[in-house]
Amino acid sequence: MSRVSVKRRILRVKDTARTRKIDSLAAEEPLEIRLNGTPLTVTMRTPGDDFDLAAGFLVSEGAVGAADDIATIRYCAGATVDGGNTYNVLDVRLAPGVPAPEPRNFYTTSSCGVCGKASLEAVRTVARWSAGDDPVELTQPVITSLPLRLRAAQRVFDRTGGLHAAGLFTADGEALCVREDVGRHNAVDKLLGWALTNGRLPLRGTVLMVSGRASFELVQKAVMGGIPVLAAVSAPSSLAVELAAEEGLTLIGFLRGDSMNVYAGEHRLAEEALLPD
Amino acid sequence: MSRVSVKRRILRVKDTARTRKIDSLAAEEPLEIRLNGTPLTVTMRTPGDDFDLAAGFLVSEGAVGAADDIATIRYCAGATVDGGNTYNVLDVRLAPGVPAPEPRNFYTTSSCGVCGKASLEAVRTVARWSAGDDPVELTQPVITSLPLRLRAAQRVFDRTGGLHAAGLFTADGEALCVREDVGRHNAVDKLLGWALTNGRLPLRGTVLMVSGRASFELVQKAVMGGIPVLAAVSAPSSLAVELAAEEGLTLIGFLRGDSMNVYAGEHRLAEEALLPD
Repeated sequence: MSRVSVKRRILRVKDTARTRKIDSLAAEEPLEIRLNGTPLTVTMRTPGDDFDLAAGFLVSEGAVGAADDIATIRYCAGATVDGGNTYNVLDVRLAPGVPAPEPRNFYTTSSCGVCGKASLEAVRTVARWSAGDDPVELTQPVITSLPLRLRAAQRVFDRTGGLHAAGLFTADGEALCVREDVGRHNAVDKLLGWALTNGRLPLRGTVLMVSGRASFELVQKAVMGGIPVLAAVSAPSSLAVELAAEEGLTLIGFLRGDSMNVYAGEHRLAEEALLPD
Repeated sequence: MSRVSVKRRILRVKDTARTRKIDSLAAEEPLEIRLNGTPLTVTMRTPGDDFDLAAGFLVSEGAVGAADDIATIRYCAGATVDGGNTYNVLDVRLAPGVPAPEPRNFYTTSSCGVCGKASLEAVRTVARWSAGDDPVELTQPVITSLPLRLRAAQRVFDRTGGLHAAGLFTADGEALCVREDVGRHNAVDKLLGWALTNGRLPLRGTVLMVSGRASFELVQKAVMGGIPVLAAVSAPSSLAVELAAEEGLTLIGFLRGDSMNVYAGEHRLAEEALLPD
């Protein structure tokens, strides 16, 4: 069972060349960690070394400090409605006398479901609008200009080199709002909050440009904001591409110089941009 | 109140030159978001645009879809024991008739406290061992070799370009364990779990090398594993440096080619590495 990467057919764009190729994506799936049978946390992770992940999570929380603090770790059967094993839920039993960590050591963040499919369905259930039918088109020069436009608008990065940036742009490349944060999800949430406050939801006709990678969570946030196009400097995860394809979003990755990979929704790339002068 | 970046005195190492300079760090502080007075989530964020962050978080969760779904957002007074306002806790009141999101839409992850100081104290409270007195020293050639050693051990990155890596190394640069994940915290948790299972905690005399940035959470995990040295390819956050300094960890950032920035614990850099032949 090797799920650390997933193959997918993509469109590679470089200068005026467009080629189709098979690309490998880092796999991303939710993992629910149960402690003595009680759900403790769900984390979006790359499958593999899951028992180590669960044990290490408990080390990080200060709950265990030696191997024999843990009695058993096992995947839970019956994690799907038909009783199947998704290998996305596991239960840690602490050894007798080892106290479970107190809830105050944990906090919440956004998520949905305990398998990739459930994660996709959860987004569909709570989404208020669909960007799938948004007719916006973008020209290649506008798209390839976005990283520089985002960088130009960053205020703190040049000083610290340590911030993720997210920017909302029009289809003409005009910056509507740019935010920076140590957490990429926070930068996007700040944009969505700006849009909400200014009566701009859903964000039809816009592009969300992010400085790093495109995770499932970022595509989810684009969907929740009604944003039809998400562009990232780095790689998307497998589940990010699945969600974008299912929701009709255009997902662009490795947007650098004059090149990019289009993982979903390539119909929004205007053809005329490629015609010879 | 500008807290988006924080200045700190650092040691800059390049080839045989060591210079002291003032560096700017991206600020990182926890933000607790309360909903109608009830704690909903804590996120580690860069201060600024906090109301947008809270509103956008609720947009991401599908709880609100228009500006008038929110009645008020305000910082909570009395967030510290002396009644002061940390500007790290805020309360969102939904408009009448707007239902609060259901808990099932949230999941938990590790955290501690609602201000930087409380976050540092929380780590000290739960830490089982201290790496502050670990006498390990590293030579500059070993340190500068770590990014290549980590990259060489990465299995999936070359295929996907989309994974964070974390590696545990000895002071001689020997790789003990390397893990990859879409989530940087997961990669480190996988290492800690490996160490726990193999009876290697606390990880005295080791170096944790990570492919990306050094957040507070990663330093916290190093502390929880008893690791004395954390090295990162990119920038640390302000709170990451504070925690490293307080716990006696050596924190190295921007480790690229023959250069690095040392943010804390520079006494573990062996002097002899700089002597002429």
